[in-house]
Amino acid sequence: MSCRMSWLLMRNINKQPYHAFTRFIQRQDIPLAFLFVISLEQSMSERYEDSQLYRIRHSSAHIMAEAMLERFPEAQIAIGPPIEDGFYYDFDLPRPINEEDLQWVESRMREIINAGYDFTVREVTPDEALKFFKQQKYKVELINDLVAGRVDENGNQIAEPAGKITFWTQDTFTDLCRGPHVKNTREINPDAISITFKPPAGAYWRGDENREQLTRIYGTAWESADQLEDYLNLLEEAKKRDHRIIGERLGLFTISPLVGKGLPLWKPYGATLRDTLERWLRETQLDNGYLPVVTPHIGNLNLYKTSGHYPYYKDSQYAPIQVDNDEFLLKPMNCPHHIMIYKSDMHSYRDLPVRLAEFGTVYRYEQSGELNGLTRVRGFTVDDAHLFVAPNQLLDEFKKVVSLIQDIFNALGLSDFRARVGTRDPNSDKYAGADELWEAATAAIIEACDDMGLDYVVEEGEAAFYGPKLDFLVRDVLKREWQLGTVQVDYNLPERFELEYVAEDNSRQRPIMIHRAPFGSMERFVGILIEHFAGEFPVWLAPVQVVLIPIADRHLEYAEQVAAQLKDAGLRVEVDHGKSRMANKIRTNRERHVPYMLIVGDRDMEAGTVSVRLRSDEDLGAMPLADFVSLAVSVSDSKSLELK
Amino acid sequence: MSCRMSWLLMRNINKQPYHAFTRFIQRQDIPLAFLFVISLEQSMSERYEDSQLYRIRHSSAHIMAEAMLERFPEAQIAIGPPIEDGFYYDFDLPRPINEEDLQWVESRMREIINAGYDFTVREVTPDEALKFFKQQKYKVELINDLVAGRVDENGNQIAEPAGKITFWTQDTFTDLCRGPHVKNTREINPDAISITFKPPAGAYWRGDENREQLTRIYGTAWESADQLEDYLNLLEEAKKRDHRIIGERLGLFTISPLVGKGLPLWKPYGATLRDTLERWLRETQLDNGYLPVVTPHIGNLNLYKTSGHYPYYKDSQYAPIQVDNDEFLLKPMNCPHHIMIYKSDMHSYRDLPVRLAEFGTVYRYEQSGELNGLTRVRGFTVDDAHLFVAPNQLLDEFKKVVSLIQDIFNALGLSDFRARVGTRDPNSDKYAGADELWEAATAAIIEACDDMGLDYVVEEGEAAFYGPKLDFLVRDVLKREWQLGTVQVDYNLPERFELEYVAEDNSRQRPIMIHRAPFGSMERFVGILIEHFAGEFPVWLAPVQVVLIPIADRHLEYAEQVAAQLKDAGLRVEVDHGKSRMANKIRTNRERHVPYMLIVGDRDMEAGTVSVRLRSDEDLGAMPLADFVSLAVSVSDSKSLELK
Repeated sequence: MSCRMSWLLMRNINKQPYHAFTRFIQRQDIPLAFLFVISLEQSMSERYEDSQLYRIRHSSAHIMAEAMLERFPEAQIAIGPPIEDGFYYDFDLPRPINEEDLQWVESRMREIINAGYDFTVREVTPDEALKFFKQQKYKVELINDLVAGRVDENGNQIAEPAGKITFWTQDTFTDLCRGPHVKNTREINPDAISITFKPPAGAYWRGDENREQLTRIYGTAWESADQLEDYLNLLEEAKKRDHRIIGERLGLFTISPLVGKGLPLWKPYGATLRDTLERWLRETQLDNGYLPVVTPHIGNLNLYKTSGHYPYYKDSQYAPIQVDNDEFLLKPMNCPHHIMIYKSDMHSYRDLPVRLAEFGTVYRYEQSGELNGLTRVRGFTVDDAHLFVAPNQLLDEFKKVVSLIQDIFNALGLSDFRARVGTRDPNSDKYAGADELWEAATAAIIEACDDMGLDYVVEEGEAAFYGPKLDFLVRDVLKREWQLGTVQVDYNLPERFELEYVAEDNSRQRPIMIHRAPFGSMERFVGILIEHFAGEFPVWLAPVQVVLIPIADRHLEYAEQVAAQLKDAGLRVEVDHGKSRMANKIRTNRERHVPYMLIVGDRDMEAGTVSVRLRSDEDLGAMPLADFVSLAVSVSDSKSLELK
Repeated sequence: MSCRMSWLLMRNINKQPYHAFTRFIQRQDIPLAFLFVISLEQSMSERYEDSQLYRIRHSSAHIMAEAMLERFPEAQIAIGPPIEDGFYYDFDLPRPINEEDLQWVESRMREIINAGYDFTVREVTPDEALKFFKQQKYKVELINDLVAGRVDENGNQIAEPAGKITFWTQDTFTDLCRGPHVKNTREINPDAISITFKPPAGAYWRGDENREQLTRIYGTAWESADQLEDYLNLLEEAKKRDHRIIGERLGLFTISPLVGKGLPLWKPYGATLRDTLERWLRETQLDNGYLPVVTPHIGNLNLYKTSGHYPYYKDSQYAPIQVDNDEFLLKPMNCPHHIMIYKSDMHSYRDLPVRLAEFGTVYRYEQSGELNGLTRVRGFTVDDAHLFVAPNQLLDEFKKVVSLIQDIFNALGLSDFRARVGTRDPNSDKYAGADELWEAATAAIIEACDDMGLDYVVEEGEAAFYGPKLDFLVRDVLKREWQLGTVQVDYNLPERFELEYVAEDNSRQRPIMIHRAPFGSMERFVGILIEHFAGEFPVWLAPVQVVLIPIADRHLEYAEQVAAQLKDAGLRVEVDHGKSRMANKIRTNRERHVPYMLIVGDRDMEAGTVSVRLRSDEDLGAMPLADFVSLAVSVSDSKSLELK
């Protein structure tokens, strides 16, 4: 199958089930899909699908299929695309695969690589293709669909038949594919590949639960053995940082089947963390001239018909609720509600920009198999704002928004990010709005990026249908890249809702909208922070900042007094009333990642001190309470990532 | 009709459409219905239906019906109960009523009153009753239904036929009624009655849109002419304070038909006010050991089946949404979600009380005709908390909750409130839980009230089905009484959800739940505050606290500098950039009820002063900026109701 196809497929797999929303809602409103790209060596500005690593992985998939067919001559082969961190291939096997098979296949792959086969391409007619693959029913189905122009390899409807069919061959193996591949298998480092099977991770043919269940073998391939080792270590580390496990252990959130899948309940510690983040962003936004609004979680279906979201993106929304003679929708986005607030007043050019901000909870339907902790949910809170600006304010306002987002990421220690400008595909007519507006908006975004010295790539065809946009791709401590903040320029909704302002010459003019969300979703963002910090949150975010550990019962009263003083200083404090021994209490609270453990005993009571132990295990010894307060308050207020 | 019946009817009319929820949800969770009781002279501890004023109003309804039958001999009479602030009677009239009719009827009522007729009662047989009222079809229907035990006067199904039928008579008029009435019409002050007709306020027979439409004449009656005048003035004042009009004028909220009826959109000024209230309550709660949680706005229908809310209260809920193979409900209350959080951990007796708090937005279906601004909505945010306590903690915790609610009302200047203890009807078997638990809980509530010196009445049969409760009835500046805070003791949900904690002896015990909400609903509470303050919010709540009014354009820069300093001091500030003259700007901002208007001109620029004008029109003259900052900050921080 073609690289382009498989790349698209891969992206769609990773973005599913937001796929239906992708072209419109997601890119319009907030960045929900997360790109889990581990690309240690990949240049920040090169597209993955143009990279050597991508070709290596795609070619490794073919080599794995060749080896699998030797091991299982009767296997039916399906598809085998590269994915962000490697590749996979789906097989229909006569029996379950085991560890011995995998070892055999992996070492056979190394032999094939070392043998130095060329990858060659040739065009074939449909008949030739069908004849060649007559024993391979999945390939036959793919070829027929391609030829008939029904659906592509991706399962998506296509308008016309594929232009040509190509075969790529290495050694004894030939696949239906558009390439590109490496020139020779020797370009692949045999010491930098690894394959795995993760039962019960089943895959259905074409993702359809009613079709055949296939065996998906995952592989990863890198340029060097060191890179592979780093990657496998990162995987191991990522597993330890799994936000679902840490979230459970630290009591941050829970998911109850009786409430519903994909609907996290924020427990007190998690709600404290979330509230702290929210309060900080809220205040930052107020300082920057944003105005708070609060809107309901449902809206009349007609609102979404006017905005154009319904019924086009119906599959990713909850079913409407009948009320009297109307239907209401759980809101999948906040923009139409904010638009109605803008529209409730007549605005003068002097009032613009109007910046309406809300932590607005939205609901979108996700297939239950796609749900994952906080990062894939069915209800999430967007740190949303919609800015209504006059055309001559666009550049300046856009820069302010970008600068605010940069400040936010930097404050959180997420300073490793790049930007991606999504522009219009000049050959497509799917975009709304006049050419000159598009050009102005695109120029404004690029000018803003240049002015601000932003590291960015331009991706043609990645705009929302109503305007160009800028996405932020942030790398966490494991070098995983997450699509977070997005800023989008919108000419379309102001048109659809007939928004206006009174210009200086008293004429009625149409404002431009900017949609922006630095975090994207509070749920997903906290999920990412949990993994980034492995639960060791900076002091200002830690749900419990200080725990008092009285050595014996007679120190409890003093501990309570100290706790009260710390609370008065604005710190989040607990007293450990447990019955276990001091060493156990220290261990337990260290495992809870409480930044400061204050051990208090006889000497502390006498001297009015506290003995400070950091979660890093460093022992700061006894210090006057006032000194500790000023240390902790200063670390917390400065949002420092350090403990002292 | 009987007093008891009409009283019930009146209450149901006023509580509709929460009626279906009344016995369970409303009393369990939050007090939505508002009691608009204007009872200037009524003792705080006497039940309205036992009062002389109640008898006067009920008797006045009969006298009005007598006068109406003289004016319209062919009229059909329906029902005529006392209501909170007077009484009404519904008539089926041969022609529309006009002002002249009303004047005639009102003066004829005075003649009847002055003539000094006794009110007398006699028991009649059903046949006698039917014969007497043979020309009055509505009375015939009432009698037949009473006798058959189908429905009572209220339209509610009844289990068995009415025990006896009584007639009350004064002068020439006899009504089907159980009394009580005044002894003689002279007990009514003829100068303290007034009647009115408010077209198009139609009333349907038995509230059924498919039945006859009737003409409802409202009346009010008081003990003295002064009281009547006060009441009419209050009505006039209430009209001026209508929160819908002030809310629109001050840009606090808007309701958009395209979003939906009963779904207010909080505009920036309103959201600021609401956020300020919320932040204050949130902090107060944190100081009192409450823990924040955040839960989704939908839940699996099974959750509400377990809690017992569904399908019993289906009519007041939105229809479920089908998702995969499950149904989900827009949450009509937060308790089941909080319960699932409690249940996600094993709790030790040492952890109790666990106090989970959330500003949780819930959705309930209201008939569209019942919707009203912020006070009757379809979606509202409850300042909710659920406390899980051990039985021996109940008294103490209950007192803490009551004390917190008192503090909150006092801080807002709503210090004129009384409490109502709702206890179990000992003759009913509708209550859940063992007798001794009920007795303990009721004793705890009454002991708490006594200990705290609370002014309270006990109303038997007013408990929720799962436990006794305490409601706060708060009087606003117009002496209107609103049911606000509620505290409810619940043995039932812990049972249904099998909640547990580990007691000191390691046994598993069941906690008791306390449900409480001081404001009840943020929407309704803000609506009440708007009317209470007539939009002149205390400084700490005012959406805009200070406005800078530059005398001429050359003072604009100084105004902006001052504004920036005030913002740094934490004040909410605007600069009036308008083009109109200073006097106009002062008027406009006074109409917006901005507490402080700072006029700045040449002399202020030179001296670094601001000229302070209060919204009360008092002119404080020029003062150094620092002095004003300390004045405004101190007024705001102390939550003072004064401006200086």
